[in-house]
Amino acid sequence: MASLLLLSKPFSRTSSSKEGFSCLESLSSYLPNLSLSPSLRVKFSTMPPTPKKLQVRAAGSSFGTHFRVTTYGESHGGGVGCVIDGVPPRRPLSEANLQVELNRRRPDQSQVTFPRKETDTCKILSGVYEGMTTGTPIHVFVPNIDPRGHDYSEMLVAYRPSHADATYDMKYGIRSVQGGGRSSARETIGRVAAGAVAKKILRDFSGTEVLAYVSQVHNLVLPVELVDHDTLRLDQIESNIARCPDPEYAQKMIAAIDTVRERGDSIGGVVTCIVRNCPRGLGSPVFDKLEAELAKALMSIPSTKGFEIGSGFAGTLLTGSEHNDEFFIDEHNRIRTRTNRSGGIQGGVSNGEIIHMRVAIKPTATIASIHTDVNQKKFNIVTYSYSRMLAVPVVEAMVAIVLLDQLMAQYAQGNLFSLNQDLQEPLKLPKFVEIDETAALSL
Amino acid sequence: MASLLLLSKPFSRTSSSKEGFSCLESLSSYLPNLSLSPSLRVKFSTMPPTPKKLQVRAAGSSFGTHFRVTTYGESHGGGVGCVIDGVPPRRPLSEANLQVELNRRRPDQSQVTFPRKETDTCKILSGVYEGMTTGTPIHVFVPNIDPRGHDYSEMLVAYRPSHADATYDMKYGIRSVQGGGRSSARETIGRVAAGAVAKKILRDFSGTEVLAYVSQVHNLVLPVELVDHDTLRLDQIESNIARCPDPEYAQKMIAAIDTVRERGDSIGGVVTCIVRNCPRGLGSPVFDKLEAELAKALMSIPSTKGFEIGSGFAGTLLTGSEHNDEFFIDEHNRIRTRTNRSGGIQGGVSNGEIIHMRVAIKPTATIASIHTDVNQKKFNIVTYSYSRMLAVPVVEAMVAIVLLDQLMAQYAQGNLFSLNQDLQEPLKLPKFVEIDETAALSL
Amino acid sequence: MASLLLLSKPFSRTSSSKEGFSCLESLSSYLPNLSLSPSLRVKFSTMPPTPKKLQVRAAGSSFGTHFRVTTYGESHGGGVGCVIDGVPPRRPLSEANLQVELNRRRPDQSQVTFPRKETDTCKILSGVYEGMTTGTPIHVFVPNIDPRGHDYSEMLVAYRPSHADATYDMKYGIRSVQGGGRSSARETIGRVAAGAVAKKILRDFSGTEVLAYVSQVHNLVLPVELVDHDTLRLDQIESNIARCPDPEYAQKMIAAIDTVRERGDSIGGVVTCIVRNCPRGLGSPVFDKLEAELAKALMSIPSTKGFEIGSGFAGTLLTGSEHNDEFFIDEHNRIRTRTNRSGGIQGGVSNGEIIHMRVAIKPTATIASIHTDVNQKKFNIVTYSYSRMLAVPVVEAMVAIVLLDQLMAQYAQGNLFSLNQDLQEPLKLPKFVEIDETAALSL
Amino acid sequence: MASLLLLSKPFSRTSSSKEGFSCLESLSSYLPNLSLSPSLRVKFSTMPPTPKKLQVRAAGSSFGTHFRVTTYGESHGGGVGCVIDGVPPRRPLSEANLQVELNRRRPDQSQVTFPRKETDTCKILSGVYEGMTTGTPIHVFVPNIDPRGHDYSEMLVAYRPSHADATYDMKYGIRSVQGGGRSSARETIGRVAAGAVAKKILRDFSGTEVLAYVSQVHNLVLPVELVDHDTLRLDQIESNIARCPDPEYAQKMIAAIDTVRERGDSIGGVVTCIVRNCPRGLGSPVFDKLEAELAKALMSIPSTKGFEIGSGFAGTLLTGSEHNDEFFIDEHNRIRTRTNRSGGIQGGVSNGEIIHMRVAIKPTATIASIHTDVNQKKFNIVTYSYSRMLAVPVVEAMVAIVLLDQLMAQYAQGNLFSLNQDLQEPLKLPKFVEIDETAALSL
Repeated sequence: MASLLLLSKPFSRTSSSKEGFSCLESLSSYLPNLSLSPSLRVKFSTMPPTPKKLQVRAAGSSFGTHFRVTTYGESHGGGVGCVIDGVPPRRPLSEANLQVELNRRRPDQSQVTFPRKETDTCKILSGVYEGMTTGTPIHVFVPNIDPRGHDYSEMLVAYRPSHADATYDMKYGIRSVQGGGRSSARETIGRVAAGAVAKKILRDFSGTEVLAYVSQVHNLVLPVELVDHDTLRLDQIESNIARCPDPEYAQKMIAAIDTVRERGDSIGGVVTCIVRNCPRGLGSPVFDKLEAELAKALMSIPSTKGFEIGSGFAGTLLTGSEHNDEFFIDEHNRIRTRTNRSGGIQGGVSNGEIIHMRVAIKPTATIASIHTDVNQKKFNIVTYSYSRMLAVPVVEAMVAIVLLDQLMAQYAQGNLFSLNQDLQEPLKLPKFVEIDETAALSL
Repeated sequence: MASLLLLSKPFSRTSSSKEGFSCLESLSSYLPNLSLSPSLRVKFSTMPPTPKKLQVRAAGSSFGTHFRVTTYGESHGGGVGCVIDGVPPRRPLSEANLQVELNRRRPDQSQVTFPRKETDTCKILSGVYEGMTTGTPIHVFVPNIDPRGHDYSEMLVAYRPSHADATYDMKYGIRSVQGGGRSSARETIGRVAAGAVAKKILRDFSGTEVLAYVSQVHNLVLPVELVDHDTLRLDQIESNIARCPDPEYAQKMIAAIDTVRERGDSIGGVVTCIVRNCPRGLGSPVFDKLEAELAKALMSIPSTKGFEIGSGFAGTLLTGSEHNDEFFIDEHNRIRTRTNRSGGIQGGVSNGEIIHMRVAIKPTATIASIHTDVNQKKFNIVTYSYSRMLAVPVVEAMVAIVLLDQLMAQYAQGNLFSLNQDLQEPLKLPKFVEIDETAALSL
Repeated sequence: MASLLLLSKPFSRTSSSKEGFSCLESLSSYLPNLSLSPSLRVKFSTMPPTPKKLQVRAAGSSFGTHFRVTTYGESHGGGVGCVIDGVPPRRPLSEANLQVELNRRRPDQSQVTFPRKETDTCKILSGVYEGMTTGTPIHVFVPNIDPRGHDYSEMLVAYRPSHADATYDMKYGIRSVQGGGRSSARETIGRVAAGAVAKKILRDFSGTEVLAYVSQVHNLVLPVELVDHDTLRLDQIESNIARCPDPEYAQKMIAAIDTVRERGDSIGGVVTCIVRNCPRGLGSPVFDKLEAELAKALMSIPSTKGFEIGSGFAGTLLTGSEHNDEFFIDEHNRIRTRTNRSGGIQGGVSNGEIIHMRVAIKPTATIASIHTDVNQKKFNIVTYSYSRMLAVPVVEAMVAIVLLDQLMAQYAQGNLFSLNQDLQEPLKLPKFVEIDETAALSL
Repeated sequence: MASLLLLSKPFSRTSSSKEGFSCLESLSSYLPNLSLSPSLRVKFSTMPPTPKKLQVRAAGSSFGTHFRVTTYGESHGGGVGCVIDGVPPRRPLSEANLQVELNRRRPDQSQVTFPRKETDTCKILSGVYEGMTTGTPIHVFVPNIDPRGHDYSEMLVAYRPSHADATYDMKYGIRSVQGGGRSSARETIGRVAAGAVAKKILRDFSGTEVLAYVSQVHNLVLPVELVDHDTLRLDQIESNIARCPDPEYAQKMIAAIDTVRERGDSIGGVVTCIVRNCPRGLGSPVFDKLEAELAKALMSIPSTKGFEIGSGFAGTLLTGSEHNDEFFIDEHNRIRTRTNRSGGIQGGVSNGEIIHMRVAIKPTATIASIHTDVNQKKFNIVTYSYSRMLAVPVVEAMVAIVLLDQLMAQYAQGNLFSLNQDLQEPLKLPKFVEIDETAALSL
């Protein structure tokens, strides 16, 4: 009965197979004192490697309506990637444009030693011709160089607490061993690649910038006044492995992480994301409010537990008179708000102010106390990195995908005919600050 | 130029019309000292009523894939309602089933005097035959009895701060006068009606219950230990107008509301929602995680600024070892978790534990200080009610719609063939506690 | 057992109700010689009227992605209509624009006497403000004036051959009595109203015209050379009740119809539809080819049995060298094809030539020989009219909806940035022939 | 100006590149007598090979709602394939199950010599674990072994008549050279792989069989009475390269093809497809009628020009009394129709009779008279094969995808609760004839 709890049993039809059985058998021989005590799970760490054929399968699905992303792939198959439908044609695009973002997501770009070597080198297999998008789907592929399935096999026999192991079994009645594990993190490669395309198009179209950074690690909260959203630059965020734009707090965060890591534990945090130069009018009034689309996008990232737009939960502590954003006309004769508690979105529609949102990321569930051997400790560190710092480019990617999707929706509906000059401004402003993100990243 | 800021100007093509012009003219005669001072907006309250033809139009859109809801309608047209596609056939359904939920949403069901009289009596116009659903779309219609457009016309000439007025103009270049105002609240009638259908089917299918309540008003936070999610009943929530299941805190909340209201201001709060007896296996692993779908659904409700599932933002203050939910096997031999920081969802998929989530609702933007006459003060109170207490049934409705949609998705994919008895349990458990919600509400 | 075949029995749970039972009982008393002979169904015509509560419910669903139409309603409820999402804002639109198309669809506009009096007067309930579209959903409602359920009740007790009666029962296990009957025809009101909006926008945007006409009645085939697709006008089509642009053949068709009608039988035919001035580049390369979208749209119209684009089935009789459309450059320096066997679409994408397609419409299943009383004979005539002549505006409407939906898709993806002047021309050409369709219809 | 017609020019921004320019230059030197004569295109065949970097990119998109297929890939990239979402879990599935269908689609399985060697060996990269589907997306990949881009480069410089070359340029303003050419045929690999999964699940679930065959080649029409749809077997269809189940007509067809091929011309034909043991109740009443979904699916296959369900266009030659399908009760007490002019679908919903439909496939546009060298003649033959014989498994695949998608829709909506035993039968009948398709194909 205990095994029912702790094991991801193969589907009954195959359970009589020799290997499946021997797997269970060998397990019980290693676990004579099997019980339901909380400390039980530690015992699994000395299990022999799972047979090779038990290795990973992946997951994939679709996001977006006009700019539509389908990701696929897994940690240990041939590779991961995405198919991006609906890309505007004749836009300059190269593998380098994607690689710069993929490098930001790569676990080993942190100073932490990472046991798995993946270069995450992407290839564009379709949809780009002589450096230009063709309008047909772009297929981005990242081959797996180091598909070391046995690294993870040990800990995946038991249902790991607060992972997807148990729920995948409940849902499908069958589970690929690593399906709920690290594959999740590697699945985000497809998101980041698609997000890189979206970010580039948004920047080219309207100078729209999407920037995310770490604003909290455990109970260490970056004071709001230390970051100026009007001038925040990518290079400030990328200047340290904590991805916190304030150097002093970045050091504190890194120290906090180190302390916890030495205990074999993990901590979570908050990622703040801003959008600058977002065209006005994105989002729609009822179900597809812009904040609703953003909430779905960010809550679909592994380990996220909360989402806030503008004033968020803290806004409930204000009265209406304190919370309202007063209008004024700025020096360029544009309608603006003096404050931005709305977070750049009112009534579900962007108003041109900076969109700002926050995402809570729980402490990674994979902690060293589960697995005592050295190798696992390293793995743990990596997973931790993902949950917090590596989430930064994934958050940016999902936000960019939502914005481009909504921009295309608004363009199709709102721009077929000429604008109302009294009330509207073009989605694409004639001029905006050009950003050289490649330079920013070449530090 | 100031008028550009403050007025929702008609589309230029029609601006030469006599009435349009006189409207602007009369406005400027009432506003000799037009400026950009913060107190400016107050001045509009003595404006003459807008011509009748300026009255409202509404918005509508669709939500869900398998169980698909399209809402339509407005405050001042013939009525509001929804079309619900994909309803399972041969389920008992009556207008009374919907009415009980619509009554909960109705503004005048609070003790506060409400200037507008709407009974919100619904009619099922299609899709139900002799008290049974037919499987074809259900059209629910709620006629408007008291379409008093002039009540709101005064304040709608200026862009009200933190409303949708400005953004609708930015998006569409044209706006129906009340489109961004109270129509939003009335649009939720369609959601509540569809949610009532979903709740009934979920209850009949698997005894699944969706319950929401007010857990915070301004800075008054209901202590978590005062509500037992295992036993919480609808009648406890409905026992007071604050919709707080703890009677003592309910009185405190009502007092806090009264205090603020007397100042002509407004306050927001937090609605907590739980799902009991949710079938395991709902939601999917990548973009359509159950928490992502819920986040979108709840962030599409007007005035919401934040969403949390399980431990939420507070979870970032825990370490991984503190946050993880340990598995055990309960007395019925089912896999359970001892704690539920995951909030009933792991890896995007429901695990059968109670799903619990929180939604931040900002203080309503419509405050009495904008409009000085008595009538508007009353209106303000009502809108306030909506933002907090009336949001309760809307939150429940959206959650129920998401769950049924995901249940149908899981049923189609996962139940075409027999289950894996070792790992899965039926979506529909053989027996569950029957709930008589009609009785519960007849207090 | 025979009753199992012939009756639409209520759901078993309600079958014990008194009325349900008496209905069955009274039926068997009228049918002492119940058998399975082919002539059996005739006997039902003397049945007493079905109890009123057995009357209709309706069906509705959605079509389109960017320009999205949801229809609802039934013959005998309060009315029928549609909700149209995604409409471009600030376009002039009035109820008169829709009414002109709804009048074309109305059964009693034919010379044939029709027992049911419906004016099909539409109301725009949302989404239009002072004669301009607002961008929010347009709700079009057509109230039912003459909901005479008893007209149809007699024949609906048995499964009528080649109707939807049996399949609706098979699908849902419950059926609203008229659900598969005339409600289908009345459902098309929503399509025609939405199509009128689409046609107007297409005409305003690019001078795109959608015209359909009857090209075959039974075995009477209008010779292709008698219609010039380059110059065909709406008034030619509307000049006779057969909706055949050639006056001589129109008279032959009307005579053929009369002959068959006198025998109490029905005949079908073919509707040809053309699109002139279709922007180039609509449709996409793989699954959403323009001809695939058109095929779905037209095969969703009741009674259609076949679809052809360009050369169609006859094209299989040509060799490749005979079938290929040769390119040339016309006097305006545009790439054209000398022939148009492709039907204006190549590789799933429009090429700017006239799109031409044909739809086969089966003879209406409701024939007088089933029902012997005079009233039914009249009904039969009307249904016949629908299947052929009334299908003409429905075909146009569905084609227009597809084209606008695809235009918006192409605009969002292809027009965000500037065109490639060497290969592309603007979707919206600077000038085109203005059409005064109101004048054309005022005959 | 002529070059504007005949050349697929690179996007203007890159046209100043050296290679782009030299390409044009070299072209004009080879074409001194450039004119608009019909015979012009032949001249291109002696062009030097296009630079390697001009080679292909591919297209991909999605089909289906519940069972959702996204195809990607091209002739000359790394490979082609598909991602299949929503697959029921725990179904036995192997690469062999897919390979048997892919082999049927492979051009070189015909007796005709084919210059390109592709084994079309598929790999399942995700979604299957130890021979069982996991419920997560299945990624099927078919590597390209022989990516000989230069084979096609010559003829692709000009707009080939009745190909997608011109329209892709019109749509996107940029084109990957082979995008509109043979890639289309290779794209269907993804469809066939997904269709193989759908066919297997349908067969396992309800014994549903999908069979297609060639019923017409040019003007040679297989008499209807020579094929018995009740007993037709796959091995009869696969017994000859014409895929005509009647051996005598198969020989006539092959002879007809040979005659035309020797002239360097091509011919088209008709593919008939039947579905046996289709569950009743699939499809929905309004826009998503089963015949509408099938029409879209089949009209999305390259080269299709027409679609018929049941009586099709010929049905317009019957009167209503001749066309109606009379009901009876068969020996198993099931409601049946004596005739099947409805083609197994009434009112948009399947009635359990054999679904039969026909698809017109135009003569392939690539004919030898365009290209005079030997190599091209061979290519031509292959393409021809595709259009007719190779279309057979593609037609089956698309039909199977539609049916499974609709089955899942019906299961989710109609089977959550128990059936109405009086009117419905289970979607999955208790027993049906088991089919060993592997055996059938091993001839």
